[in-house]
Amino acid sequence: MSEYFSDLGAIQYEATDASYPLSFRFYDEKRLVLGQSMKQHCRFAACYWHNFCWNGVDIFGEPAFDRPWHQCGDPLKMAKLKADVAFEFFAKLGVPFYTFHDTDVSPEGDSPASYLYNFNVMQEVLATKQQDTGLKPLWGTANLFTHKRYMSGAATNPDPDIFAYAAMQVCNAMRATHELGGENYVIWGGREGYETLLNTDLKQERMQLARFLNLIVEHKHKIGFEGTLLIEPKPQEPTKHQYDYDTSAVYAFLSQFGLEKEFKVNIEANHATLAGHSYHHEVSNAFALGIFGSLDANRGDPQLGWDTDQFPNSVEEMTLICYEILKHGGFTTGGFNFDTKLRRQSIDKKDLFHAHIGAMDTIALGLLKAERIILDEHLSSLVTARYKGWSTLFGQDILNGEMSLQVLMDYVAQNKLNPQGVTGQQEALENYINRMIYK
Amino acid sequence: MSEYFSDLGAIQYEATDASYPLSFRFYDEKRLVLGQSMKQHCRFAACYWHNFCWNGVDIFGEPAFDRPWHQCGDPLKMAKLKADVAFEFFAKLGVPFYTFHDTDVSPEGDSPASYLYNFNVMQEVLATKQQDTGLKPLWGTANLFTHKRYMSGAATNPDPDIFAYAAMQVCNAMRATHELGGENYVIWGGREGYETLLNTDLKQERMQLARFLNLIVEHKHKIGFEGTLLIEPKPQEPTKHQYDYDTSAVYAFLSQFGLEKEFKVNIEANHATLAGHSYHHEVSNAFALGIFGSLDANRGDPQLGWDTDQFPNSVEEMTLICYEILKHGGFTTGGFNFDTKLRRQSIDKKDLFHAHIGAMDTIALGLLKAERIILDEHLSSLVTARYKGWSTLFGQDILNGEMSLQVLMDYVAQNKLNPQGVTGQQEALENYINRMIYK
Amino acid sequence: MSEYFSDLGAIQYEATDASYPLSFRFYDEKRLVLGQSMKQHCRFAACYWHNFCWNGVDIFGEPAFDRPWHQCGDPLKMAKLKADVAFEFFAKLGVPFYTFHDTDVSPEGDSPASYLYNFNVMQEVLATKQQDTGLKPLWGTANLFTHKRYMSGAATNPDPDIFAYAAMQVCNAMRATHELGGENYVIWGGREGYETLLNTDLKQERMQLARFLNLIVEHKHKIGFEGTLLIEPKPQEPTKHQYDYDTSAVYAFLSQFGLEKEFKVNIEANHATLAGHSYHHEVSNAFALGIFGSLDANRGDPQLGWDTDQFPNSVEEMTLICYEILKHGGFTTGGFNFDTKLRRQSIDKKDLFHAHIGAMDTIALGLLKAERIILDEHLSSLVTARYKGWSTLFGQDILNGEMSLQVLMDYVAQNKLNPQGVTGQQEALENYINRMIYK
Amino acid sequence: MSEYFSDLGAIQYEATDASYPLSFRFYDEKRLVLGQSMKQHCRFAACYWHNFCWNGVDIFGEPAFDRPWHQCGDPLKMAKLKADVAFEFFAKLGVPFYTFHDTDVSPEGDSPASYLYNFNVMQEVLATKQQDTGLKPLWGTANLFTHKRYMSGAATNPDPDIFAYAAMQVCNAMRATHELGGENYVIWGGREGYETLLNTDLKQERMQLARFLNLIVEHKHKIGFEGTLLIEPKPQEPTKHQYDYDTSAVYAFLSQFGLEKEFKVNIEANHATLAGHSYHHEVSNAFALGIFGSLDANRGDPQLGWDTDQFPNSVEEMTLICYEILKHGGFTTGGFNFDTKLRRQSIDKKDLFHAHIGAMDTIALGLLKAERIILDEHLSSLVTARYKGWSTLFGQDILNGEMSLQVLMDYVAQNKLNPQGVTGQQEALENYINRMIYK
Repeated sequence: MSEYFSDLGAIQYEATDASYPLSFRFYDEKRLVLGQSMKQHCRFAACYWHNFCWNGVDIFGEPAFDRPWHQCGDPLKMAKLKADVAFEFFAKLGVPFYTFHDTDVSPEGDSPASYLYNFNVMQEVLATKQQDTGLKPLWGTANLFTHKRYMSGAATNPDPDIFAYAAMQVCNAMRATHELGGENYVIWGGREGYETLLNTDLKQERMQLARFLNLIVEHKHKIGFEGTLLIEPKPQEPTKHQYDYDTSAVYAFLSQFGLEKEFKVNIEANHATLAGHSYHHEVSNAFALGIFGSLDANRGDPQLGWDTDQFPNSVEEMTLICYEILKHGGFTTGGFNFDTKLRRQSIDKKDLFHAHIGAMDTIALGLLKAERIILDEHLSSLVTARYKGWSTLFGQDILNGEMSLQVLMDYVAQNKLNPQGVTGQQEALENYINRMIYK
Repeated sequence: MSEYFSDLGAIQYEATDASYPLSFRFYDEKRLVLGQSMKQHCRFAACYWHNFCWNGVDIFGEPAFDRPWHQCGDPLKMAKLKADVAFEFFAKLGVPFYTFHDTDVSPEGDSPASYLYNFNVMQEVLATKQQDTGLKPLWGTANLFTHKRYMSGAATNPDPDIFAYAAMQVCNAMRATHELGGENYVIWGGREGYETLLNTDLKQERMQLARFLNLIVEHKHKIGFEGTLLIEPKPQEPTKHQYDYDTSAVYAFLSQFGLEKEFKVNIEANHATLAGHSYHHEVSNAFALGIFGSLDANRGDPQLGWDTDQFPNSVEEMTLICYEILKHGGFTTGGFNFDTKLRRQSIDKKDLFHAHIGAMDTIALGLLKAERIILDEHLSSLVTARYKGWSTLFGQDILNGEMSLQVLMDYVAQNKLNPQGVTGQQEALENYINRMIYK
Repeated sequence: MSEYFSDLGAIQYEATDASYPLSFRFYDEKRLVLGQSMKQHCRFAACYWHNFCWNGVDIFGEPAFDRPWHQCGDPLKMAKLKADVAFEFFAKLGVPFYTFHDTDVSPEGDSPASYLYNFNVMQEVLATKQQDTGLKPLWGTANLFTHKRYMSGAATNPDPDIFAYAAMQVCNAMRATHELGGENYVIWGGREGYETLLNTDLKQERMQLARFLNLIVEHKHKIGFEGTLLIEPKPQEPTKHQYDYDTSAVYAFLSQFGLEKEFKVNIEANHATLAGHSYHHEVSNAFALGIFGSLDANRGDPQLGWDTDQFPNSVEEMTLICYEILKHGGFTTGGFNFDTKLRRQSIDKKDLFHAHIGAMDTIALGLLKAERIILDEHLSSLVTARYKGWSTLFGQDILNGEMSLQVLMDYVAQNKLNPQGVTGQQEALENYINRMIYK
Repeated sequence: MSEYFSDLGAIQYEATDASYPLSFRFYDEKRLVLGQSMKQHCRFAACYWHNFCWNGVDIFGEPAFDRPWHQCGDPLKMAKLKADVAFEFFAKLGVPFYTFHDTDVSPEGDSPASYLYNFNVMQEVLATKQQDTGLKPLWGTANLFTHKRYMSGAATNPDPDIFAYAAMQVCNAMRATHELGGENYVIWGGREGYETLLNTDLKQERMQLARFLNLIVEHKHKIGFEGTLLIEPKPQEPTKHQYDYDTSAVYAFLSQFGLEKEFKVNIEANHATLAGHSYHHEVSNAFALGIFGSLDANRGDPQLGWDTDQFPNSVEEMTLICYEILKHGGFTTGGFNFDTKLRRQSIDKKDLFHAHIGAMDTIALGLLKAERIILDEHLSSLVTARYKGWSTLFGQDILNGEMSLQVLMDYVAQNKLNPQGVTGQQEALENYINRMIYK
C-alpha cells in the first residue's frame, strides 16, 4: 500500500515562531536539557489503540471515522494494513516508542489457537516494522476487558477458566513484549473491580488478583524479561470501583501481598483526576512510595466525570510534572505515553498529527521550563530551608527515635514552648513558578 | 446548676407507632439481635465537639447558637458547665459512650503548664461524671488542628518544636483516655497534609508522621493501654490533601513504615464520600485489608463537596453497613460514634435530641433489617455459589500457585476453552435487599 | 415467532410477603391512592432503546447480550422481531405506556426515502401491536445524536443541511407520535452543545436551536397534536456542555426566545445529579417555574460521573418525588418513564423483568408513603405555619409592593427591630419522613 | 497611625525579567492594548473583606493572622484603623477600585440606629480616603448573610421583619455606593436558598426574592443611581442550594419575574466551577444571554468542593477570559475584582502583595495574549467560516422562519440529502491558542 498520510513527510522541528502548524516549535529531539537530549528525557510513545483501533464511536454515537482498515475484510489483512499506517504515523511523528495491547495489533480470533496463530503472524510484522523504523515498544499489555468473557473481571472473575484465559493472553503478550524489546510490561485492571458489593467477595477477588500478579512476576523472571512491571491505577470506569483505584491503593494492595518491590505504577493524568487527585499529586506520591514507573500523558476535562483522554495542552501543568521527574533524576524504563484520543469530531487524517504535535510541544516546553527551575535552585533551596529544624540535633533525635512521647512532653513543659509558625509562602511560590514559565 | 434540658427526661423506647417524636421507635437497647442486645451491637457514642463546642458558626456566618457555656467567663467554670450539660445530654439520650478531644473538655490555656493543669482539673470532673452516669469514652483524641500553631501540620510540621508540642498533647490525651477507661485512641490528621506541593517535602513529612505514629505505639505499650489505636481517614479539608486520604492510603502509609499491625481505621461516612467512595466500600475495604476498627456514623450531602457531618437518616444505607458489620462478627472495641452536627438553623435545645434519636433509630432499624438478611442466608449462599469454581481442584491449584502462566496457557489452548460468563444478578439482588427492608 | 420470554406470563401483584421475585409486591395497579388507581398515578412507561436496542456494549467492552434481533439479517425483519419481543415484554410487565425514538423502532436506511419507507412499515407494526396490547406511547422522539452526521449537533450544526435533515426526522416522528396516540413529544438535545468554545458561536447556535423549537411548535399546532412538548435537560455527555443543562437553563433558553409557554421539562434523575442537583430539587424547581412535565425515573451512581441509567431502587428518594407530584395534583400528560438500562453483566432474559419489577415496586411504595404524608397533613401545615408572617397585613403589604426600600428602612429604624430566627427543624422533619416511611 | 506596610512603597512595573518579586512584570497600567490602557481594560479592584476582615479562621482552625485592627477595642476606632491600612494597601498596590460590604467597613452595632450611625461615620472616612487616593468603589453591597438573623435567608426569610431588616441595609448600602461614586451595586444571595426542601415553600421564597429585587430596581431609579445592578451567581455554600445557582438560573429567575433587563451578572470563577461550569463557559453564556456585567477574578482548586477563593494564576485560562471580554468590546461598568483570599498559612504582611501582584500580572499577561489572538484574526475568521452555510439563502430562509418542518422534510427527501460533517479542529485550535500564548 502507498502511504496513508501521503501528503505529509516526517514532522520537523522549526524555529519557534514558525507559523506552519504541522511542525514542532519546541520539541527539538536533539536539544540538550540538563545534559541529556529531549528525546532521551521525554521517551515519547504513541499508542496503537486510540489512534488506530478506535473508530470514533461514543456511548451515544456510531463510528465517526472513515478508516480503510476498519472496513470489512480478512482480519489479518486489515491488521497488516493497520500496522502499515500505524508505523507510518509513528515514524513520521518521530516518536521512539509505541505501546500496544495484544488485540490492538492482532485479530482476536474465535479460539485460543487462532488468537495465538494470528498473534504470531502479526508479531513478525511488528518486528519487521520495528527494524524498518527503529521504533520499539515502550510497553506491551494484554486486553483483558473488551471481550464479553471478561465482563465480570479477568483475574478476579468468579470463573477460574476465565482467569486461565487471561493468563494465556498475558503469557503471550509478555513473551511478545520481551521479544520485541519492550521496556516495560503493563497491567491495567479495567474489569478488576466490582459493579455492586452485593455479589462480590472482596477477599476472594483480591486473593485471585494477588495470585495473578505473582504468576506474572514468576513468568518475568522465568523468561528473563528485565523490563519493569507496571500497574496502571484507575478509580472506576468501566467498573463502578477498580481495585487499582489510585497509587496508594495499588501500594496498599501490593504490600498486603508482599509484592511492593515487584511492580511500579504507570500514572495517567485523567485517571488521577477521576480519583480526586492532581496529576502532580499522583506523581509525587508514587515517588514518595518508591513505585514511580511511567506516565500516560493526557488530560481530562475538569467538568466531566469520565475518562476523556484528551491531549495534554497545559504547559503550566506539564512544567510541574517535568520538574518532579527531573528532580528525581528522570525516567528509567518509563516514558511519556500518549494515552490520548482525538475528539470525535476531529475526523481529518491530519488531526492525528495536530494533536500529537501539540502534546509533544507542550511537554517539551514544560521540560524547558522545568530545567530553568532546576537550574535556578530557588525553589529547592527554599524547601530545604523550610525543614531546616529537622537537621538540628533536636530534630534528628526525634527522627532517630531517641525521644519518647513522655520525654517530648516534659521537654515542652519544662521549656514552656510556644512555637509560632511562619508563612507558607504559597502565593509567592506560585508567582515564582509563573515567572519561570513566562520569563 | 439545674438541668439544662429541664423539660426532658431519659429518652424511652416506645411502641413503633408512637407519635411522640422524642422517643425511640426502633432502638430498644435490650432487644436481642443475633443473640446480643442492640446496646452491645451498636455501642453508640455521642461526641463532645459538635454538640457542645460548636457555636453554630459557619464559614459565612457568625455563631447562631445561644448556649450558656459559650458566654464569656472563667474558662474552667465554663468547661465545667459544659460538662454538666454534656453528661446530662449523654445520659438522657442513653448512649453508653462519648468521644472527646482534649481541648473539647478542657480550656487550652496559654502555656503547656496551664494546658496540663486545666486538663487535670477537668479529667477529675469527667471521672466523676462517668461514675455518676456509667458512661465511658469510646475514644479520646488530641486536637492538633485548631490552634494556629498547627496551621502547617502537627507531626508533619516543618518545625520540630511544633511536633514536640503535639507529642505533649497526645501523651496527655492517651493517658487520660486510658485512665478514663476509653476503648480506643484516635488519630485524625486534619492538618497532616499539604496546601501546595510547591513548598512540601513529601518524603520528609511522611517520615515525621511515621515517627509520630511509632511514638504513639511505644507509648501505648508503655502505659499498658489495651485499647485500639485508630486512624481516621479523610481526603481533604481543612488541607488540600491529607495523607490519610482513605482506607487504602492509610494502609499504604502504615505498611510502608511497618505499622500495619498496630493501627486500625475509624471510618466516617462523609469522609468516605468526599474521597469518592461509598461508605459501604470503605467498610468492606477495611475488612479486606484487616484494619477495620470503628465507625463515625454520619452522612454528607451528595451535592456538596465539604464535610457536612449530617445525621445518618438512610435506613437503606445503614442496612448494608450493619450487614457488613454483622457478617464480620460485630464490633470489638469500636462502635458507632455520631460525628454529626446540627444544621445551623436548628437552634432549639431539643434539636440535639431530635437529631440523635433519628440517627439511633436509623441504625437500629438498619440492624434489624441486616439481621433479617443474615438469617435468611439467601444473599450469602448466592455469593458463595458465585465463586464455587474456585473450590474445585482446578481453582485451588491456581490459588495455591501450582500452575504457572505457561501451564495455564497450555491448558487453555489444549482444551480450546471458551468460557462464558453468567448474569451478575445486580438488579435481582438490589430487589432482594429492598424486599428484606420493606417486608 | 413464539414468545421470547416463553416461561413467563403476565407479572402479577401478589401479597406483600410473597417470596417469588418475579411478581409485584407493592404495585397493585388497581389500588386506590388518594382516589385514583396506582396505574393512573404512575403512568409507567418502559423504553424501547435501552431494553431492545442496546446490545450490552460499553466504552471499554464489546456487546455482552445475545439477542436474536441483534443478529445480522434483513433490517426490517429484525425490526419486526424486535417489536414482537418489545411488546411481549411491555404487555407481560403490565405498563400502560412505552417510549421510543424513530430509529429504535425502524431501520435508519441509507437515504431519506428509505428512512421514511422503513418508518411507515414499522409504524403499521406498532399500531397493530398497540391495538393488540392496549399500550400507547407516553412519548415519541427523534434520534438526532447517534448518526455521525450529527456529531457537531443537529439543530445547532454549522451546516444547515444537517439542520434540515433533523427537521425531516422530527417532522416524521411528531406525525407518528400523534397518529399512534402519544401523549407527549420529547426533545433531547444530546448533541446540541459544544465540545470546545474555541470553535463555537454560542449566539448563532442558540438562534438556530430557537428556530428549531419554533418550527416544532408551529408543526404541533398545524397537525393538531394536543400532547405536551417536552425538553429533557442534561448537562453534558455526550458533549462537553449541553444547552439544556438543567431545568433553569431550559427555562432561561425558552424565555430568551419567548417559548416558555410552549414547552415543559422531562426530568431525569441521573441528569439532575450530573448537573449537581438532587432529583427532588429539579422536580421542585420545575414546578416553581411552571414547566413541570414528565419524569425519567432512574438513578445514577453517587460515585460515578456519567449517566449510568440505573433502575430506581430507593424508596426513601422516591417517596419525596411522589410527595412532590401528589402535592401538585399528579401528572397530566406525563408519567414515570424508565430510562434505565441493565448492568452489562445482567445477561439473562429475566433480568429485564427483575429490574423493572423492582423499579415499579419502588415507586409504588414511594407513592403509598407519600399518600400517608399527604393525609397526615403534619408536614404541609408545618410549612404553612413557617411562613405565616407573610399572611399578615405587613407581609402582604411588602409582597404587594406597597412599601419601598426607604419605607422599610424607616420602619426598621423607628421600631428598633431586632428580629430573631426560629429553628428550621430539619432533623425533626427528616425523622418525621422516616417515621412515615418505616411506620 | 504610621504606615502598616512601612517597608513597601507603591508597587512598580519593572522590566519583564526583573527578579524582584514585589513588582509587576506584565501589568504596566499605561501600556496600550487595542487602543486602551491596561488600566482601562482591567479595571482592577481589591476587596475589603478577605483582605481586611478575615482573620485567618477556617472551619477547623482559629484565627491565624495577627492584625492590629482585629484586636479588642472600640469598634469605630478599629474600623478606622482598618480603613487606614486598607487604603494604604489599595493605593500602594495601584488598583483604581475597591469593593466592600456595609459591615466590612463599619461596625454592625447592636441596633438599626447604631448600624446607621456607625455607617455614616465610616462613609465620611471612606470619602476622605477616596479623595486622598483617587480610588473609587467598583461596587458596594450589603452583607445579608453573616449575622445570625439571616440564617434562614434575608429576602427569602420566613419572617417579613427580617426581610425588612435586609431592606434597611440595602437601602443604606445603595445610597452609600451611589454617593461614593460606585460603578455598580451587587447582590449576592448567600443565604437565599434552602438547606432542606422539607421546610421550604419554593414559590413563596421566589416571590419574596422577586419583590426584593423589584424594590432595589425602584430605589435605584429613585436615587438616580446610574450604575449597574449585578447579581452574583453561586450554586451552594453556605446553603445547600442557592437560587442564583449559575448564570442560567439567574436569567431564568429574572425573566420569570420580568426583571431580565434590570440586572446583569457578576461572575466568579470559583462559583462557576462549583456549579459544574468552566469560568469561560459562564462568561460566554452571560454574553449569549445579554447579561454580562462584571467578574470576580479568582480560582478554585479542581480537587476541592468548596469556595477556596484562590488568586488567579493561570495565564492559559485568563487568556481565554480576556479574549472573550475583548471580543465583546471590553467591560462597561464592570471590572476584575479580586474576590480572593490568602491561604491561611500566608501570615506575612507581604503575602497580601505577593498574591495580588501575581494575580494582576496573570491577567495582564492574559490580556496581552488575547490581544495577539484578536489581532491575528485567525481564530475569528475560522469560526465565521465554520458557520458560513447559515449566510446562504437557504440558511437565511430557515432562520427567518420561511421554511416549515414539512417544507424542510420535503426538501431533504426530494434532494436525497446526505450531509457529511467536517472536522471540528479542536486539537488544532488548542495548539493555535498555545502558540499564541507561548510565541
